[in-house]
Amino acid sequence: MKVGIIGANGYGGAELIRLLHQHPNVEIEMLISNSTKGSLLTDQYKHFHYIFEKSLEEWNPDEIQSKVDVLFFATPSGVSKEIIPQLIERDIICIDLSGDFRLKDEYLYEKWYKNKSANIEDLQKSVYGLTEINRNEIKKATLIANPGCYPTATLLGLAPILKANVINMNSIIIDGKSGVSGAGRKPNVGSLFSEVNENVTAYKLGKHQHIPEIEQEIQNICGFPATVTFTTHLIPMTRGIMCTIYANLKKNMSLEEMLELYQETYLEESFIRIRPKDKLPSTKEVYGSNYCDIGLNVDERTGRITIISVIDNLVKGAAGQAIQNLNVIAGWDERTGLNGIPIYP
Amino acid sequence: MKVGIIGANGYGGAELIRLLHQHPNVEIEMLISNSTKGSLLTDQYKHFHYIFEKSLEEWNPDEIQSKVDVLFFATPSGVSKEIIPQLIERDIICIDLSGDFRLKDEYLYEKWYKNKSANIEDLQKSVYGLTEINRNEIKKATLIANPGCYPTATLLGLAPILKANVINMNSIIIDGKSGVSGAGRKPNVGSLFSEVNENVTAYKLGKHQHIPEIEQEIQNICGFPATVTFTTHLIPMTRGIMCTIYANLKKNMSLEEMLELYQETYLEESFIRIRPKDKLPSTKEVYGSNYCDIGLNVDERTGRITIISVIDNLVKGAAGQAIQNLNVIAGWDERTGLNGIPIYP
Amino acid sequence: MKVGIIGANGYGGAELIRLLHQHPNVEIEMLISNSTKGSLLTDQYKHFHYIFEKSLEEWNPDEIQSKVDVLFFATPSGVSKEIIPQLIERDIICIDLSGDFRLKDEYLYEKWYKNKSANIEDLQKSVYGLTEINRNEIKKATLIANPGCYPTATLLGLAPILKANVINMNSIIIDGKSGVSGAGRKPNVGSLFSEVNENVTAYKLGKHQHIPEIEQEIQNICGFPATVTFTTHLIPMTRGIMCTIYANLKKNMSLEEMLELYQETYLEESFIRIRPKDKLPSTKEVYGSNYCDIGLNVDERTGRITIISVIDNLVKGAAGQAIQNLNVIAGWDERTGLNGIPIYP
Amino acid sequence: MKVGIIGANGYGGAELIRLLHQHPNVEIEMLISNSTKGSLLTDQYKHFHYIFEKSLEEWNPDEIQSKVDVLFFATPSGVSKEIIPQLIERDIICIDLSGDFRLKDEYLYEKWYKNKSANIEDLQKSVYGLTEINRNEIKKATLIANPGCYPTATLLGLAPILKANVINMNSIIIDGKSGVSGAGRKPNVGSLFSEVNENVTAYKLGKHQHIPEIEQEIQNICGFPATVTFTTHLIPMTRGIMCTIYANLKKNMSLEEMLELYQETYLEESFIRIRPKDKLPSTKEVYGSNYCDIGLNVDERTGRITIISVIDNLVKGAAGQAIQNLNVIAGWDERTGLNGIPIYP
Repeated sequence: MKVGIIGANGYGGAELIRLLHQHPNVEIEMLISNSTKGSLLTDQYKHFHYIFEKSLEEWNPDEIQSKVDVLFFATPSGVSKEIIPQLIERDIICIDLSGDFRLKDEYLYEKWYKNKSANIEDLQKSVYGLTEINRNEIKKATLIANPGCYPTATLLGLAPILKANVINMNSIIIDGKSGVSGAGRKPNVGSLFSEVNENVTAYKLGKHQHIPEIEQEIQNICGFPATVTFTTHLIPMTRGIMCTIYANLKKNMSLEEMLELYQETYLEESFIRIRPKDKLPSTKEVYGSNYCDIGLNVDERTGRITIISVIDNLVKGAAGQAIQNLNVIAGWDERTGLNGIPIYP
Repeated sequence: MKVGIIGANGYGGAELIRLLHQHPNVEIEMLISNSTKGSLLTDQYKHFHYIFEKSLEEWNPDEIQSKVDVLFFATPSGVSKEIIPQLIERDIICIDLSGDFRLKDEYLYEKWYKNKSANIEDLQKSVYGLTEINRNEIKKATLIANPGCYPTATLLGLAPILKANVINMNSIIIDGKSGVSGAGRKPNVGSLFSEVNENVTAYKLGKHQHIPEIEQEIQNICGFPATVTFTTHLIPMTRGIMCTIYANLKKNMSLEEMLELYQETYLEESFIRIRPKDKLPSTKEVYGSNYCDIGLNVDERTGRITIISVIDNLVKGAAGQAIQNLNVIAGWDERTGLNGIPIYP
Repeated sequence: MKVGIIGANGYGGAELIRLLHQHPNVEIEMLISNSTKGSLLTDQYKHFHYIFEKSLEEWNPDEIQSKVDVLFFATPSGVSKEIIPQLIERDIICIDLSGDFRLKDEYLYEKWYKNKSANIEDLQKSVYGLTEINRNEIKKATLIANPGCYPTATLLGLAPILKANVINMNSIIIDGKSGVSGAGRKPNVGSLFSEVNENVTAYKLGKHQHIPEIEQEIQNICGFPATVTFTTHLIPMTRGIMCTIYANLKKNMSLEEMLELYQETYLEESFIRIRPKDKLPSTKEVYGSNYCDIGLNVDERTGRITIISVIDNLVKGAAGQAIQNLNVIAGWDERTGLNGIPIYP
Repeated sequence: MKVGIIGANGYGGAELIRLLHQHPNVEIEMLISNSTKGSLLTDQYKHFHYIFEKSLEEWNPDEIQSKVDVLFFATPSGVSKEIIPQLIERDIICIDLSGDFRLKDEYLYEKWYKNKSANIEDLQKSVYGLTEINRNEIKKATLIANPGCYPTATLLGLAPILKANVINMNSIIIDGKSGVSGAGRKPNVGSLFSEVNENVTAYKLGKHQHIPEIEQEIQNICGFPATVTFTTHLIPMTRGIMCTIYANLKKNMSLEEMLELYQETYLEESFIRIRPKDKLPSTKEVYGSNYCDIGLNVDERTGRITIISVIDNLVKGAAGQAIQNLNVIAGWDERTGLNGIPIYP
């Protein structure tokens, strides 16, 4: 299968290249980047020297049509909604890693993204690409809205208790901790080493655009609405997201029962690892891989569950899940090209 | 005033030396460390070369009595409860940075610390040294139980809304993030650079010994009991603690009203800085200093307040607050020896 | 081919497991670790959950003989020299990542390692496993002394100018910078996060056991002896080694000529990437991979060449090169199981 | 004494504010920053909240004259040479932390800085502010060219052997390792956390503008010219510089003799700490302080000395040394305002 990547000079783009280049069924035919067109990939990312040396090209829908079957969007928000319609007309499968097609409600997009939404007809074509939850819809999709990094960790962490209907829906609090690569390669003061190292920062309290995405998908998973508190923190590391999720239980459940519920829910899943009691996951244990590792605690004193869900934000939270979705669409084994073991230490 | 430090070879001890050496009213007369007795301080900590060169001595209560007025304990838990009684008899003021005298209830200590508690008579002599809250009791104290690092950030962050009685007492969730220096200088695998860097780890879920300390002091502050959820995370930095605290509001309050409440509560306090709207604190902004910086968000969608409270765990969370308490006991300006500006970046 | 790993609970062992588990021609049959025997690999390294779950076994040469064809030694120095003789008798191929069989001169081993050397007959059987240099000897070897991490980066960086005989042999100065994982997983104060972060330390000046190894192999490569200055620094990162190498040129050569010399020397090598002018390598550009990237500068003012040579110390500097050597011995494509792309950022 | 700071929004500026605000004899009257004029200092640096809250003003020489006696320049290169002449006319003492007035030879400035030099008359008024070496000239100076960070560590490390005339002048090789704060707060890709963390990079090989500065001052110190090799590396930390310096000895000297030479040379110096044998300095041991710590090794095998010289690049390498120079000019104790103990860990 022939694929292209637009936004190839960002971190998400570079990670797509790393993974797709190692994918046995895929050929990368085009790297597109308007801002750095004409330069070599190895000018942007020297680690690809002698491995993959290709030029970055300008956006051109006709040329894309002639060269690729699938186009991955690793573009900032606001880009894909403008150009995806032209590609859908040309029968190109679009896998969009940006947020443009995730919110089905135009009003919510405009409220949280402070920008005009994609057209409602295009929105309706898109499938939210949380593979483990929406696999059946993804199989038939031509436009994938690949989930955000925080929503991926959060929703996979919550799905079993949402489906089992055992928590108070308005008690959900998500405390997210992220590495800096999520902010991309665009230089800004807040991402400088000197500002981030030996530091933790909370940001966008109550304003993060992943809030409506999480709430929309909670409702899709279990049928009930929820209003969540979601707080994000920047911590001094490059890769990795941990979401610590709190919710009040509606009924008494032991940790053992809860672990069993999680194990059963994800029994068939290759990329979800439910950790045994007392072996909580840490982000480095999924570094560079497509795993989502989940650990649990049930606190009888407070009647709350605490869920620790970790991913590599650039893999399961972006490029890896996008490829997992491609594998589903193409009918390949979902693990194809994604079987790298986490790098530790 | 003549002071000594026991446990002088740990990080808390080293920070006491740094701060006390710069304190104008104090002379450090003794450094005590049974495990490294006979060695020089500069063998343990080379940054003191030419600044403060002293030998580490063995524990000897008579010699302590002959040399010092005040003894700081920077010892692991379980040590001070055995030896403080002998010093109280000798009229030496004891400022204990360990957890041995914090819990007034022997049963709670034994449950959470898995160890025998101090005697109840000695416990009753001790004053919980959260300076901003217990200043009047501290003035007269001869035995200070200096607060834990997490409880300091948590309780200072909660005190205004506890006193104002505006939250649901059982809704408090504290998500703590700490640098590694809190684990001390004892070598163990979990504190190795290769394990901590590029990593976040959650630990001791529902089992941290700071839980009963926080609950005890919440009740002392406002008169009502609370059962809290408290989760701790190790993040890849050396110094600093951030507590992100969530609570459900009992009545509607705007962010502006809330900020006013906090500003008023801490109007006279030198070391508490309430941040203006949209200027949330980060840990590096208090690095090396005795400040506790607090920022707020009120989320009208969920009816919750989020409090961001940051300290340097080795200063306001340990050595700095201990010296602040000494200043109160001695009747000096509370800021004496503690006016270092945070080091940034 | 059936392989075993002894010292499986250290970082070198864990990296061997990661790479060998992904190797298509190899089955890991035994993990041996006397210090943690009986425990599960996933107790030591949680990132292997659901991927590779095996018990760690005790050393037993008969059982090894019955189960494996090749045994990798990821043991501390002093271990393999005691037990490898028994395995050679049993016709097991030994690939030793420790320093025990690297120095051919018993006296040098005893001087620099402060320990008794392996027997001279066993030393004579061993082949120094710097694949690019000694490939022909490695093909026939049954005992590989896998090179040290610093010597690997240094010797690959020096080989072209040594063979071309263009430098003053006694002018070589190597300034090495290493991540902390090279110090292993054994807890000691100097490897704690709080000691390493925001810090650079020089260590073992003039005393590092890699000095005689480098000097021995320089002579093997070019036939001339050299006495080198070699200085090592610990820097705040987990993986990666950079050696900055200085030497005085015996004759005028331009940077372009020098780059051509390096390109030609390594023309057929899969894992050595000579960087174009002005694209010096950094350690992260080889992270997790078996590459050695080399960049050059020629300074006409001083008549010196500066060579920047980088590797991942746990891959090309340890486990990766060991597997590269296995591939050579087995007659497989040298890249088998080693084609992972560096992870960046 | 009334002082102002121009370039107050950079890291050098912020560090000047931290130190000058704590200086007992100084009042900061003006903060100047054309790029962020009108904003508050606390908008740029939140750690100054409640400590020092002042507006950043526009450049205006008349207003400066009316308000300050001394102006510190923490500006990028190319700025001070344009505006210092107007201030000299107005009898304002200028302490320039940029490189504009360091090179006495216009041609060298233009060659290495790729920019037009300051006027030769102004250059002649300037005194190179390496306090320990040029103290007598500094006493009478009205224009200080404050040394670069690398030259400070290098020259203090070399001065004793230069003065003693014991090394081969053309054998000097300096391998510098720097934290990222030296690159300033201007956002660029190379300073992003995701690029710097878990990485070492060599940069500007043979092209660094500190090369002619080091060579000029070597000649000033000992009267002999030298051509040096100087290589700079960026390592993953915020503060700190280590220079590892190599030189060939002209005659046999033991480490003990060498240490004695260094001890004697710096006997009267408050900020230079010669380390005893086997206690080499690391950068964190001077963190936040004005110390320069120096350790030595003499290698009899190679006839070379290795010097390890460390400073905090923002203190002794910039703001601290600038204030030390002010203290000399004003006739105060050189340590005034600079007695902070290094922060460790």
